[in-house]
Amino acid sequence: MNPTAAILLIGDEILSGRTQDTNGNHLAKRLTDMGIDLREIRVVPDEQGRIVAAVNALKGRYTHVFTSGGIGPTHDDITADAIAAAFGVGIDVREDARAILASNYTDPEDLNGMRLRMARIPDGATLIDNPVSRAPGFSLGNVHVMAGVPAVFTAMVESLLPGLIGGAPMRSVSVRIEQPEGQVAEPLAALAKAFPDVSIGSYPFVQNGVFGTNLVARSTDETLLKQVEAHLLTIC
Amino acid sequence: MNPTAAILLIGDEILSGRTQDTNGNHLAKRLTDMGIDLREIRVVPDEQGRIVAAVNALKGRYTHVFTSGGIGPTHDDITADAIAAAFGVGIDVREDARAILASNYTDPEDLNGMRLRMARIPDGATLIDNPVSRAPGFSLGNVHVMAGVPAVFTAMVESLLPGLIGGAPMRSVSVRIEQPEGQVAEPLAALAKAFPDVSIGSYPFVQNGVFGTNLVARSTDETLLKQVEAHLLTIC
Repeated sequence: MNPTAAILLIGDEILSGRTQDTNGNHLAKRLTDMGIDLREIRVVPDEQGRIVAAVNALKGRYTHVFTSGGIGPTHDDITADAIAAAFGVGIDVREDARAILASNYTDPEDLNGMRLRMARIPDGATLIDNPVSRAPGFSLGNVHVMAGVPAVFTAMVESLLPGLIGGAPMRSVSVRIEQPEGQVAEPLAALAKAFPDVSIGSYPFVQNGVFGTNLVARSTDETLLKQVEAHLLTIC
Repeated sequence: MNPTAAILLIGDEILSGRTQDTNGNHLAKRLTDMGIDLREIRVVPDEQGRIVAAVNALKGRYTHVFTSGGIGPTHDDITADAIAAAFGVGIDVREDARAILASNYTDPEDLNGMRLRMARIPDGATLIDNPVSRAPGFSLGNVHVMAGVPAVFTAMVESLLPGLIGGAPMRSVSVRIEQPEGQVAEPLAALAKAFPDVSIGSYPFVQNGVFGTNLVARSTDETLLKQVEAHLLTIC
């Protein structure tokens, strides 16, 4: 069995529609590549109660929980405190995190009180390196807390993932047909039944007024996948 | 108090990273425009147990639940059955839905057994019009079930929303500064404290190596919002 994961996106700006999230999709692809099965994504607002409840619901259910957002210096950045609350541990400015932050500033006064908030790390956490803007993320237990800014999030993901244990990578083959999916639904259902260890999906699209379908088979077993691909090519 | 909402996105293809969801962002913006507060988004795989659990968790908590995905003709389209199971009601091919589907085909044989799956509607539901490809969505109680294909989803949203009761639309003002957010975090926190009925957020970005910040204030009260905007302009 592969390790499992959930992603928790934290931010009013996603729920208001102001921001189109891309961090979830980026991490989803990276996890698929390394054989960690992403089983759920949630988006919650910048409210401590909601973050705590979501973290507690997810961290017991999956091997890993990855969060994005709410670890900057401003008043609405409350993720670190929420994680500490979810785990029932203390949180304070930590010297190694403060030293990393300080390396950003030639004038020590620039490391003001609000910026120091970014060095507040829950007790027992390990830091996640941020080569883009220094302020670190952190892992506490199986919860990995990263920034919301995509450039920083993706850099933190690359710092974090090599240290996690992957599984059998999920491979996929995709066949595109220019027919509506209703045309191929019957042979596709038969194929799915014949290959229960291959996940076979059908993704319709509309392009320039034409209804087409992407047929996608996914499995960790390359041999099975090649057999299914051969069948898919005869369906079209 | 405005009505509240959750969005439930159903589909392995989002969790594998193959598809970047855009339906959530589209509906988020439309809900914000009409004063329905989107409070949560979840993504779950094409598994009946997971869909039922999510629908049951969300439908009691919010005024509306909007789902996307899994109502096509293929074997992996299991949303309608999952909704029926969540509500504990029956599901079968319904004559009005079958008639709508039939209007797509000149040859009645084209409305094959798999396609007829799209006319299976849980007992007690009302149909949601689909001007793009006919196969309808449906509303059962406060759960509104729509297609995953973006062109069809957005069309169904426009069929559905005029019938829902909105609230006070959330307005926002946005001020973009070319400074990292740590530079303005203190006055911003003071402003947030002085205007507790205005939600003030700070969204950092990295562009061409420059760290900047979008300061965003949101409220249903235009007068308060103008006051906050004036303050934001002095912060920069």
